[in-house]
Amino acid sequence: MTRWTYLFGDGKADGSGRDKALLGGKGANLAEMTRIGIPVPPGFTLSTDSCATVSAAGGDWPDDLWDEVLSALARVEQWSGRRFGAADDPLLVSVRSGAAVSMPGMMDTVLNLGLNRDTLKGLVQAGNPDSERFAWDSYRRLVQMLGDVVLGVEHEAFEAELHRAREEAGVATDAELPAEGLRHVADRFEALVREHTGAPFPADPHEQLRLSISAVFNSWDNPRARKYRQLNDIHGLQGTAVNVQTMVFGNRGDNCATGVCFTRDPSTGSNEFYGEFLQNAQGEDVVAGIRTPRPIDEIDSVLPGMLQQLLDTKERLEAHFKDVQDLEFTVEDGHLYLLQTRNGKRTGPAAVRIAVEMVDEGLIDQATAVRRVEPSALDQLLHPTFDPSADRHVIGKGLPASPGAACGQVVFDAAHAEEWAAGGKTVILVRKETSPEDIGGMHVAKGILTARGGMTSHAAVVARGMGTCCVAGVGALSIDAGARTARLGEHVLAEGDWLSLDGSSGEVMLGRVPSVEPVLAGDFRTLMQWADEARTLKVRTNADTPLDAARARSFGAEGIGLCRTEHMFFGEDRIAAVRRMILADNPRQRQAALQELLPLQRDDFEGIFTAMDGLPVTIRLLDPPLHEFLPHTHELQEGLARTLGWETAAVTARVAELAEANPMLGIRGCRLGILFPDIYDMQVRAIFEAAGRCENKGVTAVPEIMIPLVGNATELDFFRKRIRNAEPALRRDAGFSGPVLVGTMIEVPRAALTAGEVADVADFFSFGTNDLTQMGLGLSRDDTGALLSHYVAAGLYERDPFMSLDQSGVGRMVSLATEEGRAARPGLKVGVCGEHGGDPRSIGFFHRTGLDYVSCSPFRVPIARLAAAQAALEAAR
Amino acid sequence: MTRWTYLFGDGKADGSGRDKALLGGKGANLAEMTRIGIPVPPGFTLSTDSCATVSAAGGDWPDDLWDEVLSALARVEQWSGRRFGAADDPLLVSVRSGAAVSMPGMMDTVLNLGLNRDTLKGLVQAGNPDSERFAWDSYRRLVQMLGDVVLGVEHEAFEAELHRAREEAGVATDAELPAEGLRHVADRFEALVREHTGAPFPADPHEQLRLSISAVFNSWDNPRARKYRQLNDIHGLQGTAVNVQTMVFGNRGDNCATGVCFTRDPSTGSNEFYGEFLQNAQGEDVVAGIRTPRPIDEIDSVLPGMLQQLLDTKERLEAHFKDVQDLEFTVEDGHLYLLQTRNGKRTGPAAVRIAVEMVDEGLIDQATAVRRVEPSALDQLLHPTFDPSADRHVIGKGLPASPGAACGQVVFDAAHAEEWAAGGKTVILVRKETSPEDIGGMHVAKGILTARGGMTSHAAVVARGMGTCCVAGVGALSIDAGARTARLGEHVLAEGDWLSLDGSSGEVMLGRVPSVEPVLAGDFRTLMQWADEARTLKVRTNADTPLDAARARSFGAEGIGLCRTEHMFFGEDRIAAVRRMILADNPRQRQAALQELLPLQRDDFEGIFTAMDGLPVTIRLLDPPLHEFLPHTHELQEGLARTLGWETAAVTARVAELAEANPMLGIRGCRLGILFPDIYDMQVRAIFEAAGRCENKGVTAVPEIMIPLVGNATELDFFRKRIRNAEPALRRDAGFSGPVLVGTMIEVPRAALTAGEVADVADFFSFGTNDLTQMGLGLSRDDTGALLSHYVAAGLYERDPFMSLDQSGVGRMVSLATEEGRAARPGLKVGVCGEHGGDPRSIGFFHRTGLDYVSCSPFRVPIARLAAAQAALEAAR
Repeated sequence: MTRWTYLFGDGKADGSGRDKALLGGKGANLAEMTRIGIPVPPGFTLSTDSCATVSAAGGDWPDDLWDEVLSALARVEQWSGRRFGAADDPLLVSVRSGAAVSMPGMMDTVLNLGLNRDTLKGLVQAGNPDSERFAWDSYRRLVQMLGDVVLGVEHEAFEAELHRAREEAGVATDAELPAEGLRHVADRFEALVREHTGAPFPADPHEQLRLSISAVFNSWDNPRARKYRQLNDIHGLQGTAVNVQTMVFGNRGDNCATGVCFTRDPSTGSNEFYGEFLQNAQGEDVVAGIRTPRPIDEIDSVLPGMLQQLLDTKERLEAHFKDVQDLEFTVEDGHLYLLQTRNGKRTGPAAVRIAVEMVDEGLIDQATAVRRVEPSALDQLLHPTFDPSADRHVIGKGLPASPGAACGQVVFDAAHAEEWAAGGKTVILVRKETSPEDIGGMHVAKGILTARGGMTSHAAVVARGMGTCCVAGVGALSIDAGARTARLGEHVLAEGDWLSLDGSSGEVMLGRVPSVEPVLAGDFRTLMQWADEARTLKVRTNADTPLDAARARSFGAEGIGLCRTEHMFFGEDRIAAVRRMILADNPRQRQAALQELLPLQRDDFEGIFTAMDGLPVTIRLLDPPLHEFLPHTHELQEGLARTLGWETAAVTARVAELAEANPMLGIRGCRLGILFPDIYDMQVRAIFEAAGRCENKGVTAVPEIMIPLVGNATELDFFRKRIRNAEPALRRDAGFSGPVLVGTMIEVPRAALTAGEVADVADFFSFGTNDLTQMGLGLSRDDTGALLSHYVAAGLYERDPFMSLDQSGVGRMVSLATEEGRAARPGLKVGVCGEHGGDPRSIGFFHRTGLDYVSCSPFRVPIARLAAAQAALEAAR
Repeated sequence: MTRWTYLFGDGKADGSGRDKALLGGKGANLAEMTRIGIPVPPGFTLSTDSCATVSAAGGDWPDDLWDEVLSALARVEQWSGRRFGAADDPLLVSVRSGAAVSMPGMMDTVLNLGLNRDTLKGLVQAGNPDSERFAWDSYRRLVQMLGDVVLGVEHEAFEAELHRAREEAGVATDAELPAEGLRHVADRFEALVREHTGAPFPADPHEQLRLSISAVFNSWDNPRARKYRQLNDIHGLQGTAVNVQTMVFGNRGDNCATGVCFTRDPSTGSNEFYGEFLQNAQGEDVVAGIRTPRPIDEIDSVLPGMLQQLLDTKERLEAHFKDVQDLEFTVEDGHLYLLQTRNGKRTGPAAVRIAVEMVDEGLIDQATAVRRVEPSALDQLLHPTFDPSADRHVIGKGLPASPGAACGQVVFDAAHAEEWAAGGKTVILVRKETSPEDIGGMHVAKGILTARGGMTSHAAVVARGMGTCCVAGVGALSIDAGARTARLGEHVLAEGDWLSLDGSSGEVMLGRVPSVEPVLAGDFRTLMQWADEARTLKVRTNADTPLDAARARSFGAEGIGLCRTEHMFFGEDRIAAVRRMILADNPRQRQAALQELLPLQRDDFEGIFTAMDGLPVTIRLLDPPLHEFLPHTHELQEGLARTLGWETAAVTARVAELAEANPMLGIRGCRLGILFPDIYDMQVRAIFEAAGRCENKGVTAVPEIMIPLVGNATELDFFRKRIRNAEPALRRDAGFSGPVLVGTMIEVPRAALTAGEVADVADFFSFGTNDLTQMGLGLSRDDTGALLSHYVAAGLYERDPFMSLDQSGVGRMVSLATEEGRAARPGLKVGVCGEHGGDPRSIGFFHRTGLDYVSCSPFRVPIARLAAAQAALEAAR
């Protein structure tokens, strides 16, 4: 028989911190904290199994689930010495969701269950002087939450009633409403429920409990939660757990409080206790950002001695969980209770600093440090920051909620943010406060600016999780959503205005502030060294210029895995010659154009070889999307006709002749080389001459010539023979004596499927996973962006296969080709140079598949190094 | 030590008919005939090994080769009682090529080796009264052939000298030149050789022999021979053998003759001895078509009793070789010698008749008959013939050299034929006589018409081999090649004029004569029945209309493997609704258009189900190349805008929005269905409703719904669930109770690579090998036609992968997917519906891979049946 419920309380727990998959993160950690003696209000957790079972049964509960809930509830009653539904000092409980992976704010919560018009009197009797007001406030909150979450009454309807009550009472905030006013509110809320549902508000505490648990089960599949999982790449979970826990109240009087803390600063990683509290408030008041909370180190001013209790708790939690904790606490009548602890989300810089410092402190070992930092989080350390010497026209300041430097155009709602971003604009999302409904807009925004809320507000937490720059709680900001304008001090901002946000200082600046390049130093460098010790997969870079090559080398690149020669052909000084070369209708014309290009190509290669002195440089011979080079305007055609000595009409005709129905599957790559071998001949000569010049000046060039778009071993063999036959003369002319490899891209499915034959004539393989994905999946990247978004949303592909390698399809070709290539040629060097080479998840696959290296854009080199290290550590376990 | 030479003579032979790979077809059969006692002039064969060895050594002979030639020659001298190079009655030999596969006229031959100014006197002494003339004629032929073939002197230079000699002598033909004239010709020929080569004509018989053998080795790789092998799909041979054989002379006087015979009629297959001879002539005079020969049954008029000798030989050859023989003979001084025998090339109809009749005669068994007919030869039985009731404006008549009915535009040379055909025209190649240089033009011509030459002339033999209609030897035809006109009787034909040829009657008709459909009857039906008994692979057809379905069924199709629904959408009555459906920007508009299409689709399906009563019909849901449906002219856009109630600009914009950079990899197939499921819903409903109507009228519909362009099992699962969920209601509404399968095309490489997952949700697989080739090879069919021709010519692909399945690449996906699909779902039905389903070589692969069926166009159904039978017989061996 399956067990559905897991108790925690009285220093004991059925579960533990290891049971996250079964009890969710929250439930597992409540159990763990209970076990180690941290004060936690007693309760029990319904397993994720129960959610999955109920959901699979279309909402029906298994026979024994309710009985188990009742008997668990009985134990909680025992521990707390109160009875659920009792008129006198009743036990109240909360019902909260909690999945294995944190999804903050995405699912539902109901508090104060067990209250009704009878039991609320029990609160009054048991209470302090303000207890009648507290009792009615607690009851109206129950009606509101249960009405909204469970019974589907619109949130706004409740808010409208509250608004009316405040007006009638002539007060500005709910907190000022007297007991009588709150009683009226509760009456109206009950009426609202009756009106919307046709039935009275459920007074039976057991019915409240059962309905709430069901609602939380359901909330697992609400659209918001599904979108969150999709955006955050959360897959494979079976549902949410549900935590039923004794209520403790931070809003029962002035010796009560509630707060949220991080054991270290989640923005910078500095080892300082960090958090906020609100006196006399409930937890969601902090998170919702409705009242601006006070810094945690001021708590002793209202609850003397509490800070030390919290610091002691912090020490115990970090020592036990060995990671930064994000904790929620409530103080009820001076007693501290922990309601939640979890590993704290942090920025990239903070993640690096915390990992390195925890090793220094002896809390964790190097391998753990390397494993703990999300490779993609490094992105934040690798992107520009504002130039310190630039003028900043600061017009406001808020909390530095998530670091980074963002410039973008102002938009005032999430829908516009998504629309503008889809149109290629960079946007700053400006909101009074954000809510889970804004998640899509936050995801596409370069930066987020809010008028209200603190460092732990929704905006701040989500932005840090996304690595998006955020400045929160800019009190001087007032937004007129209707007019699509905002005022900040004396400045009026209209939709579309440019704004710059500094997420590390909290500054808001008018216009576009210039930025500077990042450097790899300090903790970051230390972590990278540890990663390098752990990894076996080499990391190269894709670079077409000496500048990119040098940058990538400073980021730790161990060579160039892809140097695209066609990009070099777009320069002002050469595009005309390139066009003549392509349009040439006889070998002499083509040769003349090629002779012009030869010295330019040689200089290109010399610069790159010099930047990569001693490291291998894989040069891909021309792989043109032909149409990109063609002169498409009449003016350009006319000019070209003059230099070719043709009629303009002839150029126009030739351009039309070269047009292709499906350029992706047309005359590209080595096919052009097969038709016109002299183009590749020129490039090969340029490579040898550049390498010779390097040798002459004491620089070691290590060229690897890569033939693109090979589908059949015969194609590669054609060029290999041609190059090897020419080699003695080329070496003599150029004065180059180092080794030169000749290998191929594996980017056409057929090449992967016949890899044994290809390996017979290849010195190396480099997977071009972009094309392998396009052809293997039959999806043109240019045409199916919207389709793929739809596919991912509908679960037809788990991820966008151009972002993260489709391991079962394209990946199968990669592993098959690696295996059969190496069988044919033992020790064959195999790498990957598609964009997946910089994707951590794909890198894990490439490591497991036994590739020698990945190659990625310069800015992703450190990410790849870390991901490769994690893959190696993972495999070693 | 490798043995290079194989003797035959004196009733014994080193080789036999089984040694074709080693001795070539000619050499092996000379050995075999010698063994069975047929009179063959003695000689020896240099193996294909020796050709390969010499060619690999760049023309150098292995040390022992010449020694072996000399000792073989000594044996031949012994048998013939003459000495090579003797002044008195010298032994003369011929040197002829002969590959394992017949390549008529493609490689070189030199006759009369051993003659020089000394030895030719030996011919005179040994001769008859005209022997001096004969001797000089033989010598000048040697100088001419050796000069042309071995020494590279232009053929035309010799012809010009002959022409001058005839003029000087005042005679019309070479035959009228007296001995003295021929002696002058020989002098001039020798001078020509000296002039062109700077050296005297080689007088040493051994040098002549060695040079000639080398030249024949070389001729294996001449461009003409390579092109022939490419056109005729001849691969994997190592070279030609070389036959050195005692000369016998058909031109030594009036009791001499030479001829070419078929043991049965190669045009019709009728069992009649069939051939031609020339009195007092050499063999090449018959083949070259310079003199028009006489029918073989007239031979007794000049050589009494010879016919019976030939008929006896015919009987022995057929009884021994068990196939129609194409034989060359020479009668020297009343003695019959066989110079060659080989299996005779024949037309498709002849092949079928001969195979069936030989079974009736007990010569071969059914399996042999089935194996013997080239599947592609059936094409000739399956194409239209001229309507017997049509008016024929006959303007001339020739020999019915190769059957068929051809209409086309007249061209007068091969180059023009190729050019016009490439431009999409159908051409009739009109030549005085054809030569091997014309091969490219003959290949593209619909029909061939010659003024000279008989049934065994070059034109006739090649045309029959190609299955191309040919009328030969139209004596009344005179061609003015310079003016590009011809005169036939009173008619003047200009280039571009339309002509119709009847290859079965020899009639030449002005204009375009209408044609009628073929029927499957008689011997053809018998052979097909034998094939059906042998094969295990089922054969279905690709058909989109009831008419095609019925035709294919009459050709033996066992179901429809591919019914393309998008083709149905092009009809006048529906294209407007289709366009509205595609352009619709909201579901209501789309639904309205779909409702218009539903009854039309239902009628389509009902017609097809009815035609295929009881047989399965695989219907592929809409797989649109979207752009093909779009209105591209302003006028069409305007009209569509009116019916949609849009601005024209909006239609134009939407058309632009739907344009794709790579439509082949864009929104096609099930992707459209995923985005707009109601399109497929409509089609599924139409299928059920049509099937219900059939059930109601007693017709058995067996629908199989096929989802196109699936790359991921999730896509198929989406539709499968949707169809299965809708099924109960559809069945109820439609009144259909039969089974309905839901399966998929495997045409995206990823689907093949994840076939196990796809099979979990598929009732059947059907390989779409066209797209699988396009995507697997990364080659768009629309863009790479010229590239692929170049690739095939350069040997980069062995064959055009769109014509014949690329077995190692695409085929690997087919076999992998079949294996893994069946592992996941035992008994999974697997077929192929790409165009390769009608290609005999590919069918062999599909049989070996274990597919259940192939599907091809109606006209290829019998070809596929035969190919499937051959594959089964092959596998059984």
